[in-house]
Order: sequence, then C-alpha cells, then structure tokens
Amino acid sequence: MGSIVVRENERGFISVDWGRSKRLITLEEVGSKYLRVSVTEYAPGTEHAIHRHPDQEEVIFILEGRGISRTKDGDRAISKGAFVSIPADMDHATINVSKDKPMKAVIMKSPPYEGKEKQPSLCKR
Amino acid sequence: MGSIVVRENERGFISVDWGRSKRLITLEEVGSKYLRVSVTEYAPGTEHAIHRHPDQEEVIFILEGRGISRTKDGDRAISKGAFVSIPADMDHATINVSKDKPMKAVIMKSPPYEGKEKQPSLCKR
Repeated sequence: MGSIVVRENERGFISVDWGRSKRLITLEEVGSKYLRVSVTEYAPGTEHAIHRHPDQEEVIFILEGRGISRTKDGDRAISKGAFVSIPADMDHATINVSKDKPMKAVIMKSPPYEGKEKQPSLCKR
Repeated sequence: MGSIVVRENERGFISVDWGRSKRLITLEEVGSKYLRVSVTEYAPGTEHAIHRHPDQEEVIFILEGRGISRTKDGDRAISKGAFVSIPADMDHATINVSKDKPMKAVIMKSPPYEGKEKQPSLCKR
C-alpha cells in the first residue's frame, strides 16, 4: 500500500451509538496492519457505554469539547489537548458532559480490528 | 498498567535531529504494547531526513504549521488537520517549509519500538 495524506473533511461520517465517526487510517482504507485512526464525535449529553477491547489498546486525543473518561481508576475530566490511554481489556466509557456541543476526538487503536467480527492477527504474518 | 490522561504540557521536550519531541504514550511511560504516541516539533526550515521504519507503521497528524511529506509517491503539502499515513518499510521525510515557525504534530507508531535498539516483539507475548 502507498502512503496517503488525508483530511477529515475528505471522509464522511457514519452513525454510531454515541454520535458519529469517520474512518481515516484503517485496514479497509489503507491496508494498515497495526494502526487504526478515526475521528469521532460524541453527541451532546451522550455516553459511550462502558465497554472493553480485549487485546486492543486505545488512545483518545480530544480535539474539541469537554467530557469525562471513566475507568476503574476513576472519573477524569477531559478537554481539548488531553490524551487518554486505555490499556487492552480495561472497562472504559467516554462521556460528553455538554448539553449542546459535540466532543470531538481522534481515536487511535492497535491492533486495528473493529467490533467483534475481527480479531487481532498480528502474529499470523 | 492503568489508564492515564496526559496533556502535552505535563511532559518535557527532548532534542532530536529535526527539532524536539515529547513522549506521551509509550512502552516506557505506560507499558503500551502496541501504540506509541508522541508530540514532535519540526524546527523552522528543517527536514527530517529520508528514513524508514522496518515493520513499523506511522501516522503523523499535523497540529500547527506547514510542510511537505516526501515519499516515493511524491511530495505532498501538509498543514493543520492533515493525517499522513506511512506504511512500514517505506522511505519518507517530513519537511517544515516555514523559515520561522515550528511545524507541530502528533506522531503515532505501531509497533511501539523506537530507534534501532528495539525491534517489534508483538508475537513473543
């Protein structure tokens, strides 16, 4: 696969339970084996329910808005410029506390599988 | 390892050939096995020389400034909001074209090794 330069406005949103999301750098888009990068908007007043990604790490970089990162380590306030690191297999939730503005973030995941249908296969190469 | 919330101003820069850089989410800082996230500033007028990361993918998300991403696919203008995806083992360079302002970016790498001293070991777990 080649290198790419992509801007958020070149991709469309898809609806997700907690708002809407855009795929930017993924297995499907660029053939990445390790990195999955997307932009997500948590809708005003919504909560991405507690969930976990077995064997997948996540970093959330907040671009706009204010919210809470909830894990067993407690609730932490997050806003523009915060990086949230979620280890694999840890329960976590991300909450937009604003009633009228989305909270926007870059989502980085590795391995790059999404959902339950794909599992990591980094060691099969 | 636990989850963390970290802001760029909580970490210090270290000098690198092309400017300066801060580690945020790394094996050393949080024990991440897959993701390595840092913030880098390409100094004005400098060029991160052509190099490649065997078996490591990189995504560069531009926060401030203007520059060029150079690969065999050609030179591409980059500025705030651009995501640059560099596949493993591809020669690439990042150039700050400004004579007086740094170009700042979030650097995402996976696997999270850095330099020649560490090699990917994802399959040894």
